[in-house]
Amino acid sequence: MNNRSFSIEDQNLLESILMSRRDVRGNNFTDQSVSEESIDKILHAASMAPSVGFSQPWEFVVIRDIAVKKQIAASFELENDRAKKTFSSERQQLYSSMKLEGIVEAPVNIAVFYQPSTDPVLGQNTMLETGEYSVVCAIQNMWLMSRVMNIGLGWVSILDPNRVKSILKAPPEKKLVAYLCLGYVETFLDRPELEANKWQARKPIGHAIHRESY
Amino acid sequence: MNNRSFSIEDQNLLESILMSRRDVRGNNFTDQSVSEESIDKILHAASMAPSVGFSQPWEFVVIRDIAVKKQIAASFELENDRAKKTFSSERQQLYSSMKLEGIVEAPVNIAVFYQPSTDPVLGQNTMLETGEYSVVCAIQNMWLMSRVMNIGLGWVSILDPNRVKSILKAPPEKKLVAYLCLGYVETFLDRPELEANKWQARKPIGHAIHRESY
Repeated sequence: MNNRSFSIEDQNLLESILMSRRDVRGNNFTDQSVSEESIDKILHAASMAPSVGFSQPWEFVVIRDIAVKKQIAASFELENDRAKKTFSSERQQLYSSMKLEGIVEAPVNIAVFYQPSTDPVLGQNTMLETGEYSVVCAIQNMWLMSRVMNIGLGWVSILDPNRVKSILKAPPEKKLVAYLCLGYVETFLDRPELEANKWQARKPIGHAIHRESY
Repeated sequence: MNNRSFSIEDQNLLESILMSRRDVRGNNFTDQSVSEESIDKILHAASMAPSVGFSQPWEFVVIRDIAVKKQIAASFELENDRAKKTFSSERQQLYSSMKLEGIVEAPVNIAVFYQPSTDPVLGQNTMLETGEYSVVCAIQNMWLMSRVMNIGLGWVSILDPNRVKSILKAPPEKKLVAYLCLGYVETFLDRPELEANKWQARKPIGHAIHRESY
């Protein structure tokens, strides 16, 4: 079963999922509820991710309570105000015009944490970040599974991780890797919003590829 | 096109890809060559990954030269010897019995780097790691695209990143995120090797899920 051979049609389908996945923000979520069964399926996809030494170091806090979401959104507002000021005054106008998160609008939020191991982990010696990287692989699985279920997902990074940990009562040793917003959408946009509104152009992949060495 | 609605059959196919993806090591690669077209398709999948502020901060060094591979493999041998000693003497026996990489056996190696931006990046303020995390999302896309093309991929983390950078002549500002080995395989195993040989059990996903807060 796991040794299954996939076809060219299967390749094309995966490519279509990868290409139509979008970062979804609050101007695009509908209030259609997302069932527990759907969330379970998305978290099951997370658990199929690779992890260093098979450590499976991911943890999830599933949030539906509007009071919790509002506290998180307040951290976003504070940090977003600060973040905006790092750009030129010209770019600040465009920055302000963009909706960058959907914390309150999304029916479900999921905070994703890394739980470091107290024992040595196979493969996690010289590159300790591989623990967190495993959690990121799980998040990408969640993003793709959500998309193929026609559920949008947005990753909010403009947050104070310590504030989020405090709101969610996370023990000190846990590291916040991502804060995700999930829900059904009005539409999946043709292109990333930052590309469409000319914040950042798509880079030709060829420029990022080197042969044998730099 | 990007607003396409996927079906339950599409969900099942993605789930099958996620579940049959494996970390492939040198005892499982065949010497069947992997075409440039296939590598291009895998790198195209990488470029479809999400990235903070649409920064697309990934770079790839594609390696086919056996002389380069042998230098990388020497770094693995050194670090693997050190890593083994972090485990109890009982576990060291099992550790030594495992083939943990396929650097020389795999027809293609790909070193994946993170290129930090010199300008401010939208969304990369309070959580600077989101730059590297974007590269990891690209790697997971590569892993899944490889699997659906019936190509195996293994992630080698038991390496001195500075030594790898030196071998590949990477400029100082680049950060090595992953060293990947790709090739066709004898078989995709039913279960992760570390699970099958009882190095590490699969954890019930339910234990990793919290509601509203910890």
